[in-house]
Amino acid sequence: MPGTPTDPPSGATELGRRLERTRERMRAQGLDGLLVVDPANLHYLTGYDAWSFYMPQVLLVRLDAEPLLVMRAMDATGAHRSAALPADRILGYPESLVHRTDAHPFDWAAAELRARGLGGGRIGYEGEAHFLTVRSFLALREGLPGAELVDAHDLVNWVRLVKSPAELELMRRAGAVASAAMRAGVAAVAPGVRQADVAAAIAQVQASGVGEVVGDYPAIVPMLPTGESADTPHMTWSGRRLAAGEAVSIELAGAHRRYHAPLARTVALGRPTPELARLAAVTAEGLELVLDALRPGRAVEEVHAGWRAHLARAGYEKASRLGYSIGIGYPPDWGERTVSVRQDDPTVLEPGMCLHVIAGMWMQGFGCELSESVAIGEGAVEVLTDAPRELIVREAG
Amino acid sequence: MPGTPTDPPSGATELGRRLERTRERMRAQGLDGLLVVDPANLHYLTGYDAWSFYMPQVLLVRLDAEPLLVMRAMDATGAHRSAALPADRILGYPESLVHRTDAHPFDWAAAELRARGLGGGRIGYEGEAHFLTVRSFLALREGLPGAELVDAHDLVNWVRLVKSPAELELMRRAGAVASAAMRAGVAAVAPGVRQADVAAAIAQVQASGVGEVVGDYPAIVPMLPTGESADTPHMTWSGRRLAAGEAVSIELAGAHRRYHAPLARTVALGRPTPELARLAAVTAEGLELVLDALRPGRAVEEVHAGWRAHLARAGYEKASRLGYSIGIGYPPDWGERTVSVRQDDPTVLEPGMCLHVIAGMWMQGFGCELSESVAIGEGAVEVLTDAPRELIVREAG
Repeated sequence: MPGTPTDPPSGATELGRRLERTRERMRAQGLDGLLVVDPANLHYLTGYDAWSFYMPQVLLVRLDAEPLLVMRAMDATGAHRSAALPADRILGYPESLVHRTDAHPFDWAAAELRARGLGGGRIGYEGEAHFLTVRSFLALREGLPGAELVDAHDLVNWVRLVKSPAELELMRRAGAVASAAMRAGVAAVAPGVRQADVAAAIAQVQASGVGEVVGDYPAIVPMLPTGESADTPHMTWSGRRLAAGEAVSIELAGAHRRYHAPLARTVALGRPTPELARLAAVTAEGLELVLDALRPGRAVEEVHAGWRAHLARAGYEKASRLGYSIGIGYPPDWGERTVSVRQDDPTVLEPGMCLHVIAGMWMQGFGCELSESVAIGEGAVEVLTDAPRELIVREAG
Repeated sequence: MPGTPTDPPSGATELGRRLERTRERMRAQGLDGLLVVDPANLHYLTGYDAWSFYMPQVLLVRLDAEPLLVMRAMDATGAHRSAALPADRILGYPESLVHRTDAHPFDWAAAELRARGLGGGRIGYEGEAHFLTVRSFLALREGLPGAELVDAHDLVNWVRLVKSPAELELMRRAGAVASAAMRAGVAAVAPGVRQADVAAAIAQVQASGVGEVVGDYPAIVPMLPTGESADTPHMTWSGRRLAAGEAVSIELAGAHRRYHAPLARTVALGRPTPELARLAAVTAEGLELVLDALRPGRAVEEVHAGWRAHLARAGYEKASRLGYSIGIGYPPDWGERTVSVRQDDPTVLEPGMCLHVIAGMWMQGFGCELSESVAIGEGAVEVLTDAPRELIVREAG
């Protein structure tokens, strides 16, 4: 059971270290500045947390100045409630710039940066971040003629890869929420029950949490591929009623203070078909092998090779990756966009890295998902989630 | 009470009309093609619905060819379950292209378009769509040298502005879900209750729905600015316990088959302070004036002028807009990004337009929110949401 959620995970020292590590990486990539838009990166570096990322907002990190946050005035007003930045480092652009074709908030942002002498040098941007729109990017390029804008790729995401002890504690709590949400989801599965009611049971626990551990909203809602649709991930729910004899995959995350632990299980309503039973058994065996192989010093691609060999022996194949790094998450994704557990990822595992290992087997007309969220330890892996590691069979009625 | 959710809202005729109206607007803007990335626009034009938008995916609409959808192979497999497109118009890019710095899925997409002779002409992109990343954009620009890429702004969003009768029926159902979720939220508010448990009560209803009307996930989670933080919108929840004497604003949406009806109320725990009571009374009176003024043929800016004058008479001012158009929503926003109810929006109201009219007054250290989702009618406006239109006062203990 995780500890009580009292200790602040993002004190000044922790945030200072994160900023320092970000600047180190900026130096290594030859950057004078970095434009941070990904809400997870923004939260990581400043503590800022609010649902304001659907409007243009950006944190400028420079080697030669303190970070500066530019956001919609309406949100800037309350940003100090979560962001550890002095008031004069949070700028609000006027409301009149929202949703116009003839002007853009980042025209304003660029002008402010220029006026403060912060608009020059080699400045990185997050080319694959979800909330740096093309217009935002073009406005910055136009408005900062003294800067050379270069794709910094997922620079801060890579800094986030190895978690601090405080972060690991948050990941454990996220794991506890995930496990409780999965129990609620599995308990709700029965013939005649609507998918929506299974989702509702899960959502209730995701928000409320478990015991003293409060829930937070997950970056992705519960996904419930059912019956024939279980051959594809990423289907959400509908009013469809579950039927005896079919299987439903539940993929969800528990979140705690923006940290995420995802978890997936497949639940069969009544005796599974022989093909599903066999697939599930092979998958479960494979997942055990993988969990055993996740040790510091080992390369991700090596771990993947073991998994691939196991599947091949059983006559299966999985084209998609076996997992990815996790930590802070905001919609639309709980993945960190860094390490991928696949055959060409050379990342060497280190203690403090966290992964969602998802053995998702999407076949033709059926499928099965089995996953755990884990933290790489000094020796054996620490499993953050807790649910029977197998195909779950529920009475059909 | 809305009708039973049986009739399909997106039959071939409805989708055909939407495509035709999109092409009309493309012709008017001088476009040969349009790259659609916004998941709401994708859903509107094809019916496609899954949580796959965190990976690059795009629908190409052309005047001279049938629409073509390019997405991750894993998602392309099941896309036909919701998208009304023939199998040969759905292409899946290989899994190996996910999250690499040396190659991008849209390199692949561009090559496919070229190979099919679809990569030329004047092609619009959605410059402010959340999921067209800068890398995606640059890959298309690089990979389609025969095309002139131009910002089409929110072309499809504007097509969506006036709802069909089938869509209005979905909006009514979304309104019923919103009203039920608000009732659950208000009922949960009491001194000593954690914000997270109020959010959980709301989330449960949002997913499950009300009666025969099934819920769908909202584009934004419940927001609960509380106490002093009520001076800022967009704060989500924490484990903080509500206290007697303070007020909490609840902003949520009901969703039904991706259509959204947002709704906001402020709940005072015990007797409100005189300043909150006065602000709330003026706001409620103003909202009534606005609802009365929302008639076809009237300009949005005209409606806003009446609201502004009302506030000024009472000695208040609201810098932010009074509302925006709504309909289909996906994270991170339930707004359509078209009409804004503010002083410089000349849009003339037409029957079938739907708005979230949100009288959100965020003052210094306190605030109050009061909103309705509405559909412009032939005469009087149709209010889609149902909750007491006033500051809600709950016993403090």
